[in-house]
Amino acid sequence: MIPQDHPRFRSLKVREHLARCAEEGILSLEGLTAHGRGEAFDYLIGERTTESAFRAGRSAAALLLLAKKPVISVNGNTAALAPDSIALLQQASNAAVEVNLFHRTDERIRKITSLLEKHGVKVLKGEAERLLPLSHDRAFCLREGIGSADVILVPLEDGDRCRALTEMGKTVIAIDLNPLSRTAMYASLSIVDEVTRALPIITQFCRELTKEEAQLFSAGYNNRELLRSAIQEIHSRLDHALD
Amino acid sequence: MIPQDHPRFRSLKVREHLARCAEEGILSLEGLTAHGRGEAFDYLIGERTTESAFRAGRSAAALLLLAKKPVISVNGNTAALAPDSIALLQQASNAAVEVNLFHRTDERIRKITSLLEKHGVKVLKGEAERLLPLSHDRAFCLREGIGSADVILVPLEDGDRCRALTEMGKTVIAIDLNPLSRTAMYASLSIVDEVTRALPIITQFCRELTKEEAQLFSAGYNNRELLRSAIQEIHSRLDHALD
Repeated sequence: MIPQDHPRFRSLKVREHLARCAEEGILSLEGLTAHGRGEAFDYLIGERTTESAFRAGRSAAALLLLAKKPVISVNGNTAALAPDSIALLQQASNAAVEVNLFHRTDERIRKITSLLEKHGVKVLKGEAERLLPLSHDRAFCLREGIGSADVILVPLEDGDRCRALTEMGKTVIAIDLNPLSRTAMYASLSIVDEVTRALPIITQFCRELTKEEAQLFSAGYNNRELLRSAIQEIHSRLDHALD
Repeated sequence: MIPQDHPRFRSLKVREHLARCAEEGILSLEGLTAHGRGEAFDYLIGERTTESAFRAGRSAAALLLLAKKPVISVNGNTAALAPDSIALLQQASNAAVEVNLFHRTDERIRKITSLLEKHGVKVLKGEAERLLPLSHDRAFCLREGIGSADVILVPLEDGDRCRALTEMGKTVIAIDLNPLSRTAMYASLSIVDEVTRALPIITQFCRELTKEEAQLFSAGYNNRELLRSAIQEIHSRLDHALD
């Protein structure tokens, strides 16, 4: 039991929820650690959507709307944190949803698929193939999903896989709280924000953007500039840390 | 299986070890997340002992050497990461070691005690009492250990408990990778370093410092200045992130 008077109550409650999801086999235990890593960076950007992350979310919506074959790649952490938001984004963007795991087992794929379906997500199914030029199970994905997608939204992605996907010519949109991560650097577009805050923003813009606006915002971003803004946010926060 | 060619191989191996410790009940699942939080800050200070952390370690050794009743408070993460280092520091400092947990159960106390003993640590035992002015099981400790200690080394501590201990007039030495954490702010002396790097440095100084040097270094530090240096390290690293 976490005491309600603890100053980090909310953050501890999320940890507790994720711990339960790990016990159920939705999250890998390593996924818990990865979450902690994200927590630290969220703390450093002030646990809120920054102006540059908001703009990045708008460009992400534009890219999804204009894509021929958009896919949302969902891992255990994303499924545990934001199943409803995934369902709403899928409705708004018409993107396919594929479960794709770093620590891949058939059982986890099944459990995550079932969790997502309970929340109204339509999940792609099929025989995963080794389609990415990577060692390890990270290479697996569905030919009719990530394999043939032109735009992929990957919340909480592994850096290597992000790089492999962009090198295959795909447009990769990452949601990653660490602006210094290899994922954030390799992605075509990086949203430096917490996934439960970022997804509803993308969904909202998917609903609202006209085709003309989508064309404008899908081209009008500079990923290095977005990362630079996020880093600047951390600088400012550090500057006032000891006030 | 983590692929050896993964750029974050070492960090992933540690995560894997901690995941196993969590399965064995040494670490709480929340401890895995806390570790990830530390990882992020370690990354930001460059995954090495900074010059100011080195000085902080020297002052920590001085405080332990001059203490009437030094105690090392060990939690699940510390036991999982550094049982040998704890044993060596205990030998060099003559400090008592008490197992003290945020997510306290008798079973975890037993398991962690047994792990530490296997690595040569002498662990204080007894009936824990509610001695700290805190809600929750965090209030529990041993009267003959933390309860009557004058100097306490707390690697990876909860901010609330750190504060309660200093308010009871104890000198609290924290090892915490986050220079902005409440723990780092409330501690008498904060070592902003990774626990497996910091402990051997303290041990080395416990062996080497003369009494005169210990008197010098136990007084000659300024915690705010140490935290400021750590924050400055992060600034520099952020500055070169996009080079």
